[in-house]
Amino acid sequence: MSRRGKAYLIGAGPGDVELLTLKAVRCLRHADVVLIDDLANPEVLQFVPPDAEVIPVGKRGGGASTAQADIERRMLDEALAGRCVARVKGGDPFVFGRGGEEMQALLAAGIEVEVVNGITAGLAVPATLGIPLTHRDHVHGAMFVSGHTHKGDGPDWHLLARSGMTLVIYMGMTNLSHISAQLQRAMPPDTPAAAIQDGTRPEQRQVVTTLARIADDVAAAGLGSPALLVIGPTVGLARHLPGRSRASTQT
Amino acid sequence: MSRRGKAYLIGAGPGDVELLTLKAVRCLRHADVVLIDDLANPEVLQFVPPDAEVIPVGKRGGGASTAQADIERRMLDEALAGRCVARVKGGDPFVFGRGGEEMQALLAAGIEVEVVNGITAGLAVPATLGIPLTHRDHVHGAMFVSGHTHKGDGPDWHLLARSGMTLVIYMGMTNLSHISAQLQRAMPPDTPAAAIQDGTRPEQRQVVTTLARIADDVAAAGLGSPALLVIGPTVGLARHLPGRSRASTQT
Repeated sequence: MSRRGKAYLIGAGPGDVELLTLKAVRCLRHADVVLIDDLANPEVLQFVPPDAEVIPVGKRGGGASTAQADIERRMLDEALAGRCVARVKGGDPFVFGRGGEEMQALLAAGIEVEVVNGITAGLAVPATLGIPLTHRDHVHGAMFVSGHTHKGDGPDWHLLARSGMTLVIYMGMTNLSHISAQLQRAMPPDTPAAAIQDGTRPEQRQVVTTLARIADDVAAAGLGSPALLVIGPTVGLARHLPGRSRASTQT
Repeated sequence: MSRRGKAYLIGAGPGDVELLTLKAVRCLRHADVVLIDDLANPEVLQFVPPDAEVIPVGKRGGGASTAQADIERRMLDEALAGRCVARVKGGDPFVFGRGGEEMQALLAAGIEVEVVNGITAGLAVPATLGIPLTHRDHVHGAMFVSGHTHKGDGPDWHLLARSGMTLVIYMGMTNLSHISAQLQRAMPPDTPAAAIQDGTRPEQRQVVTTLARIADDVAAAGLGSPALLVIGPTVGLARHLPGRSRASTQT
């Protein structure tokens, strides 16, 4: 039986390279071949061996479905040839990263898979503004939800608005007016709301406003994807914290 | 004007020290004084300077409310005396960590605060079993919710059960029978469900079962706090992945 490789599904975090985990760094150092998304910061490649092969597999904005099949095929081929494959994704591989699908494809082919968590944007991006996801005085939980689903069947925003949770919406910018209107069926229009583009990166920009005004304010500021929406009472605590000192603030 | 210190609110992750971020390690190296929760793995103290003062401030199981005031008082005193304070919490400081409250107390006293994210248990613990939080074929989001609220007013479980999200429940073991019954008002009794104790640590144990059986199976296995509950279709993908090789599996 030939030697089989293995695959690491590695979360690179939201942008700031310092948010990589020690485990991610260790696994990157073992890579023979690296497949990296364009939402992952390429600076993480400083940790891979100089002779590792690096394959960009970006498909920002949602590419054709064949692209995902090609990625999985390439991972399988490399691992079956005995190589150590590092699949590097933005954020966490198991939060809107299709990591589950890739894991299933690899396991079905008998390849060993290890998941290496990353800091998902929903954790780190609000923290740049001092926005806690939970707070005993305000909310008892937080929800990470996609504003853009592949079948076009969005979540029940009216129900989510009644949950009492902090809403953290990924990929919500293109449907922002619709989402905001639906949420206002159950949330007060003056609920604090933020949209944060390129969170944790030097080029971070944001608007901190209200649910009623967010679509207009995002348009006026010219914010676009990739961005994260955060809606709920704790957004009212927003202020610019240090730690990403080059980031500009717009509130 | 005297020199002011600063405070880092640092997430230590769920247990596995390798899940610390590079940023957390850098900030720990700067600490003059460390206040560490008992849910944080004390092995993270390997990164603090040898002459740093280490103060355990554990209150596992929910101590008296004065304890939290004492922690905040001590942080303020140390920072106002010009020291660099590292407040180390399990998981992420802004997810059920009272980090928001501590940030507010520090900022109100004019102390510079920096939040250093950690991998929250809700990300890492399901990943040990290969459970993705989202999956395009199954769910469009995940919810992190506390099963134990300080005012005794729990979330509306029936509404959350209708959200279509993966439910990740922290501190839910003492109310498990109640939570399971409420969720079954809107979720099928055979919905896959897992309870994972000491996730990511060598002593990790779990049951992977159904929503209808989880309370009985947890009792039979003798699982207790701290543990995480994960409920939803993607739990059906559970299998033991490598990476925490010493962990025992019970399914």
